[in-house]
Amino acid sequence: MELATPCLLVDETKLKENIRRMAELSQKTRTALRPHVKTHKTAEIAHMQMAAGAVGITVAKVSEAEVMAAAGIGDIFVAYPLVTEEKIERALDLCERNCIVFALDSVEGARMLSQATIRRGKRVEARLEIDTGMRRTGVPPAQAARLAQAIRDLAGIDLRGIFTFRGAMIDGKGTLDRRTAGLDEGRTMAGLAEQLRAGGTDIVEVSVGSTPTAESAATVTGVTEVRPGTYVFNDRMQVAYGACSIDDCALSVLVTVVSTPSSGRIVVDGGSKTFSTDAVPGSPPLCLRGHGEVLGSPDLLLDRLSEEHGVIELAKDASPAKKPRIGDRLRIIPNHVCTTVNLHSRLWLVDALGKPTRELSIAARGMVT
Amino acid sequence: MELATPCLLVDETKLKENIRRMAELSQKTRTALRPHVKTHKTAEIAHMQMAAGAVGITVAKVSEAEVMAAAGIGDIFVAYPLVTEEKIERALDLCERNCIVFALDSVEGARMLSQATIRRGKRVEARLEIDTGMRRTGVPPAQAARLAQAIRDLAGIDLRGIFTFRGAMIDGKGTLDRRTAGLDEGRTMAGLAEQLRAGGTDIVEVSVGSTPTAESAATVTGVTEVRPGTYVFNDRMQVAYGACSIDDCALSVLVTVVSTPSSGRIVVDGGSKTFSTDAVPGSPPLCLRGHGEVLGSPDLLLDRLSEEHGVIELAKDASPAKKPRIGDRLRIIPNHVCTTVNLHSRLWLVDALGKPTRELSIAARGMVT
Repeated sequence: MELATPCLLVDETKLKENIRRMAELSQKTRTALRPHVKTHKTAEIAHMQMAAGAVGITVAKVSEAEVMAAAGIGDIFVAYPLVTEEKIERALDLCERNCIVFALDSVEGARMLSQATIRRGKRVEARLEIDTGMRRTGVPPAQAARLAQAIRDLAGIDLRGIFTFRGAMIDGKGTLDRRTAGLDEGRTMAGLAEQLRAGGTDIVEVSVGSTPTAESAATVTGVTEVRPGTYVFNDRMQVAYGACSIDDCALSVLVTVVSTPSSGRIVVDGGSKTFSTDAVPGSPPLCLRGHGEVLGSPDLLLDRLSEEHGVIELAKDASPAKKPRIGDRLRIIPNHVCTTVNLHSRLWLVDALGKPTRELSIAARGMVT
Repeated sequence: MELATPCLLVDETKLKENIRRMAELSQKTRTALRPHVKTHKTAEIAHMQMAAGAVGITVAKVSEAEVMAAAGIGDIFVAYPLVTEEKIERALDLCERNCIVFALDSVEGARMLSQATIRRGKRVEARLEIDTGMRRTGVPPAQAARLAQAIRDLAGIDLRGIFTFRGAMIDGKGTLDRRTAGLDEGRTMAGLAEQLRAGGTDIVEVSVGSTPTAESAATVTGVTEVRPGTYVFNDRMQVAYGACSIDDCALSVLVTVVSTPSSGRIVVDGGSKTFSTDAVPGSPPLCLRGHGEVLGSPDLLLDRLSEEHGVIELAKDASPAKKPRIGDRLRIIPNHVCTTVNLHSRLWLVDALGKPTRELSIAARGMVT
């Protein structure tokens, strides 16, 4: 069967090996693994992660939790502050049949959650988000104790954990290596947990770790859980971070060469509505060249994207024999796989030869609320 | 009713005015209007464009044509080279009940189309794509005559037109103004059509024009059709091009402030899975600052995006009274509306006060093949 392009191919052997390897890390370090499903948004892959030993999953959106709960994943951490009644009520609805853990980073959000739990006569588990350098949501470590105290004074909330997303290696200059970043992340959070316990808050869960930092963060005493996401597929960004090799990238985008209008240019049928245009922050080598690279031909880069066109410029000394021709199919490893998957409604599992074996629905794609 | 955020809001009055204004241009210049539906991917909005006088629509993908044809839009130009049997067969299936116009930019593609039409005992209408500076698909003007001749020698294809997408104002430095770009585009194409006619190819349709260039390109004698897309909604990129004002932007993304973790930072619940991260090519002012701006507060920019977080940094001298608070809802005008819409499955038509009146399905979203 010829698949219509562009489409997402996932090498099932590599996918399973990526899942196995992270599960093994979690076992070796006696750290719970709660993968973030933002990368795949696919129920079947979440089930593979659970079967390999994950304790539950992480999502960013209540609607993602709704999709995953409906697919039978019952232990879900919504790692995002919910501050509107509508979202809190939907998350509480899910609590009826599932274990849902809430995220808090403000008194306002905590009060709203508390009031909703009181109305229902419920208690819920929550974790405090800590900002360890990403400068987005989360309170700075120095303000955590005060917020924890405020939450303890509210009914209906068991504040049992703290969590952070440290990101890869961003230290303002993009120069910190991923191992140092992970150790730093783990130690900051483990230290903060001690401090909060000393202040009377019973912190049980210390949850950290992204794909590049999980390996070292998991080794820090006091860290209880890691939440990597991208590792299931990997991408060029993770290769640049040193978190994997290009051979560990399980997902590629299958495209067709539709035009070779001049001697040095090849146009494929995937552009910015097929590949993510996310730029990688930081200095080289983190600023990746191109928007993706052709599997097996690392010198062929997706140089320019418009919405439905991907342009590959050939080197001047490229051999004409190696130039792809109209109708040829190429597999391209994207820069950022999470936002690329988010552009598609389905993916194909393929065998080692690239032969499709099963179509999976990216059921939580578009679950923006 | 409170809408769950993030979500797309379309001011129906502005939408209709944008549609009316472009239709009026088409009438005044006696140029056919065949809008590209890539921007909205929404059947109801295509019908509004048809009702205002469009002769048909333009799409980039056969799957988009399938959605629009099923919704009752019967005259569709697939402005993209189809070079695989599977796609050509699907497009020919659509020809049974609709008027489908094909795009060609290679002998290989033309031969494949010809063979498929012979098998079906059909004739189809086609247009030749010309590269007038975008350096993606399309043959350079100097090679058009030879390709036109080759196509005339093939059975089953009526080569009746030429088309181009010139893009906005890119002249390698990003300095060409949109009026000059449009005139240049129109004249190049009208001149080429004359030349092809002199060579014996009966070119009837000369199709040009994007949102920024349509206005001037439509005035060029010999141009018969314009195909703008973005004008229905407009965006910050079109404002930067001078093609509209910020008040003409019909689409905004409604977001909720979820966190204000430090005095100068506001985090909203939309990131790179909600807003497009497309960079605008060229020099300033085309390199837009930020990923979007808050409607009514042009000094509030979406400074940084991660997947589900949008970060707004406040100016140091910003008045605390004007600082958005947790739970506040903001409407953000995106940089590039086409790729932003592509991230969502539905949009809301709203009245002038922002009150939702009707939910529309973005039915052709995800139609990547």
